Amino acid sequence: MKKKKFPVLYLGDTSLDTAASYLAGVMAHFEIGFDYVASDEAADRFLVDESEYRLIILSDYPAGCLESSQMERIEAWVRKGAGLLMIGGWESFQGSGGNYSGTLIEEILPVRMSRSDDRVNTSYPCLVVKREEHPILAELPFIKPPCIGGYNRVEAKGDARILLEVIRYRTRAQASACTFAEEGRDVLLAVGEHGRGRSAAFTSDAAPHWVGGFVDWGEERISCRFVQREVEVGAFYAAFFGNLIRWTGRL
Amino acid sequence: MKKKKFPVLYLGDTSLDTAASYLAGVMAHFEIGFDYVASDEAADRFLVDESEYRLIILSDYPAGCLESSQMERIEAWVRKGAGLLMIGGWESFQGSGGNYSGTLIEEILPVRMSRSDDRVNTSYPCLVVKREEHPILAELPFIKPPCIGGYNRVEAKGDARILLEVIRYRTRAQASACTFAEEGRDVLLAVGEHGRGRSAAFTSDAAPHWVGGFVDWGEERISCRFVQREVEVGAFYAAFFGNLIRWTGRL
Repeated sequence: MKKKKFPVLYLGDTSLDTAASYLAGVMAHFEIGFDYVASDEAADRFLVDESEYRLIILSDYPAGCLESSQMERIEAWVRKGAGLLMIGGWESFQGSGGNYSGTLIEEILPVRMSRSDDRVNTSYPCLVVKREEHPILAELPFIKPPCIGGYNRVEAKGDARILLEVIRYRTRAQASACTFAEEGRDVLLAVGEHGRGRSAAFTSDAAPHWVGGFVDWGEERISCRFVQREVEVGAFYAAFFGNLIRWTGRL
Repeated sequence: MKKKKFPVLYLGDTSLDTAASYLAGVMAHFEIGFDYVASDEAADRFLVDESEYRLIILSDYPAGCLESSQMERIEAWVRKGAGLLMIGGWESFQGSGGNYSGTLIEEILPVRMSRSDDRVNTSYPCLVVKREEHPILAELPFIKPPCIGGYNRVEAKGDARILLEVIRYRTRAQASACTFAEEGRDVLLAVGEHGRGRSAAFTSDAAPHWVGGFVDWGEERISCRFVQREVEVGAFYAAFFGNLIRWTGRL
């Protein structure tokens, strides 16, 4: 029997039992089919010519796990019309172990990476703010900005569109209340093109802890299940990642 | 050979591979010895007369996993001078599956629980603010309040001391900035006594996702390792949980 062909290849986020249960649950919820490779597994079986995925997702899947020829295959797919989405984490972008700076994957993505650890782990509020209208953000209430917990600091390329920014605040306890002062802004979501394909960089994570309160965005809560693992998330969180995946992969 | 006797019994937080790696790592860092029971395991072997732990930690360990006689043993230990610490989560306090409302454990703790789901999952900022001086909070810079991601909503008992509160904010995006408005306050850390023992209720979590930015509190970062799992956390986060455990258990 021929194996069913899925449009998405999702690599990383540790394992389907742990962090990957979030994005896997969201894709299952929206009935987006995908093949999955854990962060400590090789992708040989999937990164072959005949796969022709419409979207590759790299999320906490270190550059060291991809051979040069595999990056070249991804680049060729995107040039011909597939999508590439990188989602942040300690093993995404440069991170503490992502090490994508200077790779062919950086060439495809709409952002430039630091050569050294780019992680921003902060204990203070980081709000998600919209920079411009886009199908990925359609009908999402960014008028009430949600929080994230951390991200990779990257720089948008000149021809990229910055759709979301993160604003970092410092807090101060007063006698009876707290004050917030803006401390800086960074890119949270940038999109671009590479050949005929689309690329997107979301610099926070889809899973705890960096996802922060964003995972609970939306009063309506939905349960997303993939295989044995169920996650309960906010409906706007799910809608955002559903939109991001569908737009980038033209699904 | 006689088994080494540890002062702490730590029950819950799923498993040492997952959420429990945080508190286990902190205890290992401060050289606090503990026995551990996963959230889906029975505690029979440990909740026996001769154990005489100095501190019991319940964190995402559902009431349904404890028999009445086991709760009675914990109560007797605390009455005679041991400590009881409950840490929040979906399976702590009432939660979505904690179900401690109306139990003997609630009698010991310094807080009253709701009879229905008490979880506050929020995508907006929640700041941790100090209500009064206490050895648990000594030398921690609450002047710069860190964030948490969620908590169980409980009510402090009349004779409890509320040491920390959480302030929930709603956010609003303006043309070029965001505004914050206080939406409500709840108990985050309350302490009390039961007989000769101490009890403490921390209503957020020590692990993602509810711990939020609190896990990264402190510019100095430390690596905490227990058995195979290593977590990298902020130094103030570690100090807070070290203080909380030592004070509650008089260790």
